Amino acid sequence: MNAFADRIIERAKKNRSRVIVGLDPNLAQFPEYLQAQLRNEPTDDMLCETVFAFNRVIIESTQDCAVAYKPQAAFYEQYGLAGVKALQLTVSFLRERGLLTIIDAKRNDIAHTAGAYAKAWIGAKHPIFNTPNLWQSDAITINGYLGVDGIDPFIKENCDAGLFILVKTSNPSSGDLQDLPLATGESVAEKMAALTHEWGLQVIGSSGYSNIGMVVGATYPEFSANLRSIAPNALILMPGIGAQGGSLDAITAASGRGGVGAYAASSRGVMYPFDAKALNGANWGDLARVEIAAAAEELRKAIQVGVDAL
Amino acid sequence: MNAFADRIIERAKKNRSRVIVGLDPNLAQFPEYLQAQLRNEPTDDMLCETVFAFNRVIIESTQDCAVAYKPQAAFYEQYGLAGVKALQLTVSFLRERGLLTIIDAKRNDIAHTAGAYAKAWIGAKHPIFNTPNLWQSDAITINGYLGVDGIDPFIKENCDAGLFILVKTSNPSSGDLQDLPLATGESVAEKMAALTHEWGLQVIGSSGYSNIGMVVGATYPEFSANLRSIAPNALILMPGIGAQGGSLDAITAASGRGGVGAYAASSRGVMYPFDAKALNGANWGDLARVEIAAAAEELRKAIQVGVDAL
Repeated sequence: MNAFADRIIERAKKNRSRVIVGLDPNLAQFPEYLQAQLRNEPTDDMLCETVFAFNRVIIESTQDCAVAYKPQAAFYEQYGLAGVKALQLTVSFLRERGLLTIIDAKRNDIAHTAGAYAKAWIGAKHPIFNTPNLWQSDAITINGYLGVDGIDPFIKENCDAGLFILVKTSNPSSGDLQDLPLATGESVAEKMAALTHEWGLQVIGSSGYSNIGMVVGATYPEFSANLRSIAPNALILMPGIGAQGGSLDAITAASGRGGVGAYAASSRGVMYPFDAKALNGANWGDLARVEIAAAAEELRKAIQVGVDAL
Repeated sequence: MNAFADRIIERAKKNRSRVIVGLDPNLAQFPEYLQAQLRNEPTDDMLCETVFAFNRVIIESTQDCAVAYKPQAAFYEQYGLAGVKALQLTVSFLRERGLLTIIDAKRNDIAHTAGAYAKAWIGAKHPIFNTPNLWQSDAITINGYLGVDGIDPFIKENCDAGLFILVKTSNPSSGDLQDLPLATGESVAEKMAALTHEWGLQVIGSSGYSNIGMVVGATYPEFSANLRSIAPNALILMPGIGAQGGSLDAITAASGRGGVGAYAASSRGVMYPFDAKALNGANWGDLARVEIAAAAEELRKAIQVGVDAL
């Protein structure tokens, strides 16, 4: 298998896109006919089927303008076993189609336990049955608070997988800890970016970018350029475009060498660009496609500006 | 429901114990007859049954000297759907028995997503079916890197649930970030302890302890007393006793008001005090019980020293 960094860049160039589509199922926002189907048959099987059916339409409608898909584990776990089964169907479906999956799980633990998470989410084989791992994703988000012990087991499990380390998150209170200056002068987020850079040196793809990237919220454009310069080889996953009000400038400033280093993750904007009650038979997959195609076009323009300015 | 802090303290006093038993299934360390049963019938159903059967014996053998049980999510996720189903059976079993569960999941995310994790792990009802949530635990471990946004949704979902915030983790590289001094002079871990204290003031039980506690590794006894003094109301979950070589002194120093504020979490030591191949028919549940009873007794002695010294 090729390095994740090379695979995602290849896809970005092919699809002329920097948009990663979040897959965060929220039943209450699903089109009415899907909600009705579940009301008529309120079972775990139907819940799983409904969530997967929704994701499938989103994926099929957007695959030529998405770089990758990012299922957020929480939105599946909230529905219990039915939810995580729908996640499994979604990840397997993406894999069968040759599409890239970044599981947004923000896992973190001591080495012994991080190894088990690595098996769960990026391992190729089921650890007991040696069958293909149906949850295997191409990349995973990781919280680096525990230091390198929480990172190494993932590299050991699968050195071609992508790891995105939380550096500066998109939420309003991310500064509670991340913005604090250390005694050395750098902020906690800057230190985490420096650690990401250091950890990433061992898994650099032929593109020059590393399989170890970072998460930087598009909601803080003032930090983008600086964090990019601290970790020049890191792919940057930038959530916050859409519902959270993130800025294209943030992405432009982080776009990096060749303009292929930054990716906007949008979830609620792409998944639910419609009012579930007022669809009147409109094809909502098409609506999602229009939304992501527009986002991809906006980003192309924004990043082109950035690249030209370099 | 009562505050988690009060519930765990009541249990600690009743069982005269400060030991939390980790439930981290690792098939390769299971007694041979359980491994053989799975080799004979290598299916997801049998895997789930085997993991649950193991946990059930551990729980039944140790429930009168354990304060709570701490299943580590990673060790279930590594086995895929069968694993998380075994986790569900385990959590439900603990609840039916009236035993306390701390799900060691170290979840973390922005508010919208943290709310979904809160529903998954401490919510009382399934968000769609309104049936009892079969994954509902009494407490959960949380990574606080994202600040208060990642904490509040858990309090909102269930203000009686316990939250243990990672402050100083037990692993060798925890200092990569956590030991760094901030410009104010305090370390990152000390700052996280201060945030834990502040967040915890809104959910203080009648015991005076808060439902928001912290995780401090027993492997760093030199930090215990200081972190305890920064967060005097926090229950402290202390992993690292046993396989990781943690120290009783660390727990004594953190034991806090009334000697009920610190709890040792042991997983590998309690679960696998035997050589799976050399059991020769011995009752391994009894072996686990002997192990935890000894740990509880050691802690009683250690904490008594601590309390007397106060």
